[in-house]
Amino acid sequence: MSSTRSPLAPATILEPAAIAGVTARIARARYKAWDRCDLTFVTLDEGTAVAGVTTQSRCPSPEVEWCRSALVLGRARALVVNAGNSNAFTGNRGRAAVEAIAARTAQHLGCAPSDVFVASTGVIGVPLPIDKAEAGLDAAYAAQPCSWVEAAETIMTTDTFAKVAEAHAAIGGRAVRLVGIIKGSGMIAPDMATMLGFIFTDAAVDAAFLQSALAAANRRTFSCITVDSDTSTSDTVLAFATGAAGNPPLASTDDDGADSFVAALSELCMALAQQVVRDGEGASKLIEITVDGAESDRSAHVIAMSIANSPLVKTAIAGEDANWGRVVMAVGKAGEPAERDRLAIRFGATQVAKDGLAVEGYDEAPVAAHLKGQEITIGVDLGLGEGKATVWTCDLTHGYISINADYRS
Amino acid sequence: MSSTRSPLAPATILEPAAIAGVTARIARARYKAWDRCDLTFVTLDEGTAVAGVTTQSRCPSPEVEWCRSALVLGRARALVVNAGNSNAFTGNRGRAAVEAIAARTAQHLGCAPSDVFVASTGVIGVPLPIDKAEAGLDAAYAAQPCSWVEAAETIMTTDTFAKVAEAHAAIGGRAVRLVGIIKGSGMIAPDMATMLGFIFTDAAVDAAFLQSALAAANRRTFSCITVDSDTSTSDTVLAFATGAAGNPPLASTDDDGADSFVAALSELCMALAQQVVRDGEGASKLIEITVDGAESDRSAHVIAMSIANSPLVKTAIAGEDANWGRVVMAVGKAGEPAERDRLAIRFGATQVAKDGLAVEGYDEAPVAAHLKGQEITIGVDLGLGEGKATVWTCDLTHGYISINADYRS
Repeated sequence: MSSTRSPLAPATILEPAAIAGVTARIARARYKAWDRCDLTFVTLDEGTAVAGVTTQSRCPSPEVEWCRSALVLGRARALVVNAGNSNAFTGNRGRAAVEAIAARTAQHLGCAPSDVFVASTGVIGVPLPIDKAEAGLDAAYAAQPCSWVEAAETIMTTDTFAKVAEAHAAIGGRAVRLVGIIKGSGMIAPDMATMLGFIFTDAAVDAAFLQSALAAANRRTFSCITVDSDTSTSDTVLAFATGAAGNPPLASTDDDGADSFVAALSELCMALAQQVVRDGEGASKLIEITVDGAESDRSAHVIAMSIANSPLVKTAIAGEDANWGRVVMAVGKAGEPAERDRLAIRFGATQVAKDGLAVEGYDEAPVAAHLKGQEITIGVDLGLGEGKATVWTCDLTHGYISINADYRS
Repeated sequence: MSSTRSPLAPATILEPAAIAGVTARIARARYKAWDRCDLTFVTLDEGTAVAGVTTQSRCPSPEVEWCRSALVLGRARALVVNAGNSNAFTGNRGRAAVEAIAARTAQHLGCAPSDVFVASTGVIGVPLPIDKAEAGLDAAYAAQPCSWVEAAETIMTTDTFAKVAEAHAAIGGRAVRLVGIIKGSGMIAPDMATMLGFIFTDAAVDAAFLQSALAAANRRTFSCITVDSDTSTSDTVLAFATGAAGNPPLASTDDDGADSFVAALSELCMALAQQVVRDGEGASKLIEITVDGAESDRSAHVIAMSIANSPLVKTAIAGEDANWGRVVMAVGKAGEPAERDRLAIRFGATQVAKDGLAVEGYDEAPVAAHLKGQEITIGVDLGLGEGKATVWTCDLTHGYISINADYRS
């Protein structure tokens, strides 16, 4: 938790009401030498369905492997999130820690260990201390319920603000609510998306349908953000549906209310994803990059990510420099179909290049004015086909170097 | 040309003797508002063979396209290098500038325009001014021959030191020499490699054989370096063989002396490539990354480059922080076969992780001492197969941000 709030943080942080069937509590496990809550313990009513997406890293944490196994069963009774230690790359001792947390929680709640989902975030390579985890769990179990903002604060590491979002839908005449919390600031790049995110809804949703809706939302939101092109070993987004709203359970896209729920879930994921970029390490500007006219949506996404991950593009934006040549460079290196002499580039509303060269009589003034703002848009039209994609990133500043040249020490 | 020399620069810069059949001259074309030589004009004796490798960017400069066409013929009489303006993404006006330079040079030398090779480096998107290029060429043609160091200085942009290398071989009893000059500091990442490099030898070498030897050397040298993962639109390495040494022309790997020449060319390319990394923008440390035990050499290369391009690994090295968890992260995100529990990681000579976790009783002191040095080695053993690769990069520091947040202005 940094003391300096990101300049891109929302003016106010949402304080959503509780979700029926969900109770969050927090405690001090003291995984690091700090005096803050770092263990989040969420209990879920019986009958809660769960879905999840996890990192594509070839070196995932034992928490990720645990969640993947548990997701197969589709039901959940608890979520435990540890902050300050990711427990990744810790061999048998790391696996033992996850098993111990699940066992202790199952004992408290009288459920199966496989009903318990575990996620951890922080330094890699240090086994999570089982004694601290168990003591923290016991303390949380005895604690009063906490607010969403408190839970969101407790899962933070290098984040500078708590990230909460809310969305609404109607299913079969019943109003349902969705609330999400998320953490993430560095080591942010897709394959899924690089952070821990947790979504709770009182809707009744079949686990398989929840999984397909979450996977679809993920592709357009979490998988479209990047801070630094580095993908974490611990990325996890879980969605829990308690069913307390009493709607007829959603099981297919044809069901009444399915569209409303899917749209709300997607909106919620987008709000969470954008908050992660707004808290990108060292970020001073949010950058939205849209690529049109690609041969396919996939190709557009690859090119947009090539621009979003280019250190030279990101430092140019940090310097408020309309250096569109670096955008050309990033398109060129993406390896996807592109024809130099059809390429058009826009900064904000201003066309800067077209048909492979600077536009005639290009006036840099409106572009310079746009670049002085906090929200920058870059548009690229490849002129080849119908493929399109939009992704979000932040600029690359001295702040990123300062944060990461001595994070662990 | 920066005033602050990279701390990784070699203590002394080589001053090789001339190569028979090659004459370099320099002039002030004044492509930017500076008072330095920025045009290099190299004439080559009749009968000179040429080979080249160029950027894989989908948006190459007109110079790259010109060189690709001319390379098909395999012969060269001149090389013109412009610094301060890359002429990339400038449409017909850029193409016209390259054609004008080739025509003017051909007129001076009485050769075909296709015997003239042109390369330009600098800002993207501004057409190279033909009048300045022609005046510069005329001035260079009338000038006294210059040294290799003067030529190497004249092709520089953000480089902080002139980069020259020399190698020797014996072919059929004749001693032959190779000299190379190179520029590059930012926008450095392979597909070929991101810079302009020029190699000259007095050996007689058939153009096709020179091409295959250069391509092979490139794969192990220029394609194994990265400063910032950004690939330029203008990357070009050309090798010129004048034949003045009088050796029986090399035409195949079976020829006497072919091994010696190929080894010398590879050694020269390696020396040039490493100088580029040593002048990486903002670099304070040279990092050598070796990956062993991969499923294939290609797979090892992809993983090594994933580590070398990771901002989190590079900032950790900048901060002299033995944060090997970030190496695990970079292996995991590469998308290549890797098994977490077989992975071993070494910093300098010290094994820090093995079989998927920190080594028992790991002592950070020797690693901390190694990280205080200027030359850092990271070794990764995947424990899967025989594939291996070594790549070179530099750390990511505040200097990189400072240089690139206002390069163009």
